[in-house]
Amino acid sequence: MKEVSVLCPGTIANLVCGFDILGLCLNAPADRMQVKLLRESTVVIQSADGYALPSDPQKNTAGAPLVEMLKQLEEGIGFEVTIHKQIKPGSGIGSSAASAAGAVVAANLLLNNRFEKEDLVRFALFGEKVASGVKHADNIAPCIYGGITLIRSIFPLDIVSIPAPPLYITLVHPQIEVRTSDARQILRKEIQLKDAIRQWGNIAGLVAGFMKSDYDLIGRSLEDVIIEPLRSILIPGFHEVKKRSKEAGALGGGISGSGPSIFMLSQTGPVALSVESLMKETYTALGIDFKTYVTTINNKGIQLLTD
Amino acid sequence: MKEVSVLCPGTIANLVCGFDILGLCLNAPADRMQVKLLRESTVVIQSADGYALPSDPQKNTAGAPLVEMLKQLEEGIGFEVTIHKQIKPGSGIGSSAASAAGAVVAANLLLNNRFEKEDLVRFALFGEKVASGVKHADNIAPCIYGGITLIRSIFPLDIVSIPAPPLYITLVHPQIEVRTSDARQILRKEIQLKDAIRQWGNIAGLVAGFMKSDYDLIGRSLEDVIIEPLRSILIPGFHEVKKRSKEAGALGGGISGSGPSIFMLSQTGPVALSVESLMKETYTALGIDFKTYVTTINNKGIQLLTD
Repeated sequence: MKEVSVLCPGTIANLVCGFDILGLCLNAPADRMQVKLLRESTVVIQSADGYALPSDPQKNTAGAPLVEMLKQLEEGIGFEVTIHKQIKPGSGIGSSAASAAGAVVAANLLLNNRFEKEDLVRFALFGEKVASGVKHADNIAPCIYGGITLIRSIFPLDIVSIPAPPLYITLVHPQIEVRTSDARQILRKEIQLKDAIRQWGNIAGLVAGFMKSDYDLIGRSLEDVIIEPLRSILIPGFHEVKKRSKEAGALGGGISGSGPSIFMLSQTGPVALSVESLMKETYTALGIDFKTYVTTINNKGIQLLTD
Repeated sequence: MKEVSVLCPGTIANLVCGFDILGLCLNAPADRMQVKLLRESTVVIQSADGYALPSDPQKNTAGAPLVEMLKQLEEGIGFEVTIHKQIKPGSGIGSSAASAAGAVVAANLLLNNRFEKEDLVRFALFGEKVASGVKHADNIAPCIYGGITLIRSIFPLDIVSIPAPPLYITLVHPQIEVRTSDARQILRKEIQLKDAIRQWGNIAGLVAGFMKSDYDLIGRSLEDVIIEPLRSILIPGFHEVKKRSKEAGALGGGISGSGPSIFMLSQTGPVALSVESLMKETYTALGIDFKTYVTTINNKGIQLLTD
């Protein structure tokens, strides 16, 4: 194999109460990426669409992880990456993680799976560092492992797959800019112990709800008393979408990653579709361009495309 | 039925990283309690052993919950409670919860289970209020439900049973006094967000570890970066017991409730017994009186005793 194409799915980090530790892999949207094996120790980045991505591999979210991987390979191996972006950068749906994770998973396929999944996460973290200044794995891990993942710890890396029942996910991406670094700066460094206790009760409830396939418990646990009150200020329409989605029967939801996208989880397809309708109504009324997706959990993560 | 005897088990609140939200029911130690149905609206408390418990029911951990229950009953129903305490008050093994929960469970048996388990938890919370000034359910819930319980929320009350694999528990109660109220005062009202993130990663890992029967994950998640560093100061021998227990093969453990008891979880009986030995060695060397228990998870909670 000298060249592979992979499908790199979007992901939802945080899942409301699980700030920095939980993530979920989506069936849509997804990037497509081709990676070619080269006979010299170099990384070449090509963009196949309108996005002005940095061509210096060190500064590129797909390139930096491959530069790290190269350090562990013998001389005379390199990669050329062509990215077909579907997940808009800055959407909060794991665009940078899809590039970072996709590049290393594809490269690893070309190397006959020489590296373990955990190694791939470690390489891909360098892409997140480039994108947001922080090595966070809550998009990368679900993108590589599929399904819902818990990052119990980053140093040392400890990734746990969390089984979950079927869920429908409705996403709206209002086309406004919220930079991950800005969304991080709005947070307080100190929080109230009583709020933290409420939050970890919800996190424990959410994990138990997923593993027990208890939809009511999932819904009750989708509450964030620490991050959402601050970050939702940056997203017009947030509270209306959330309120109306719950009224329409959604289990709950919140900010996808650091925003501005909003996601809602539903037990049935019809509810997920009516949530999409009210999201469209809300942003049309606000006069803000948007894009919506109705999708399900992707339990496979990044997949090889065979033509 | 005019009189019942119940066995009221000890419980471990917090379970290291789950401060105020997790609790585990023990097979030992346990109190014994007799409750007699009276024909007048009153609550009478008798102590069958040396402990000087308040005889005013309003000020007694078993009495206050019954006083609350009486408010929801017709005239002409009362209870006489005789407590045989085995769980030493102030041990950190849920002594007050055993009294509070035992009284209402026994009374409910005499009333042909008129109340739901959740109602019983609500009544029993008044006992915890008497004992420590705070309505906390992390001992009461496991005492009534058995097994491991999550208190996702107290207001509104939301209790979730967490399935777990077989575990051995080794407990040591060094005979020093640590009052629950003192142990609460030592805590900080504000904590670092980064510490909270680490903590909720561990809580999610612990719940997932229990539900996946993943002993290694349970062990890795038994880490508390917020409460233990402060409270362990009050318990001589704590760090030595913890370090040596892990070296002996224990999965991990920490302070039971607000202390001073220390518990360790093990996958096998022989490890649990060697943990007991080293606990004995440690406190003998320190010249502190102690009591130890080697036990397992009690999945039934409070049980009716039939002679």
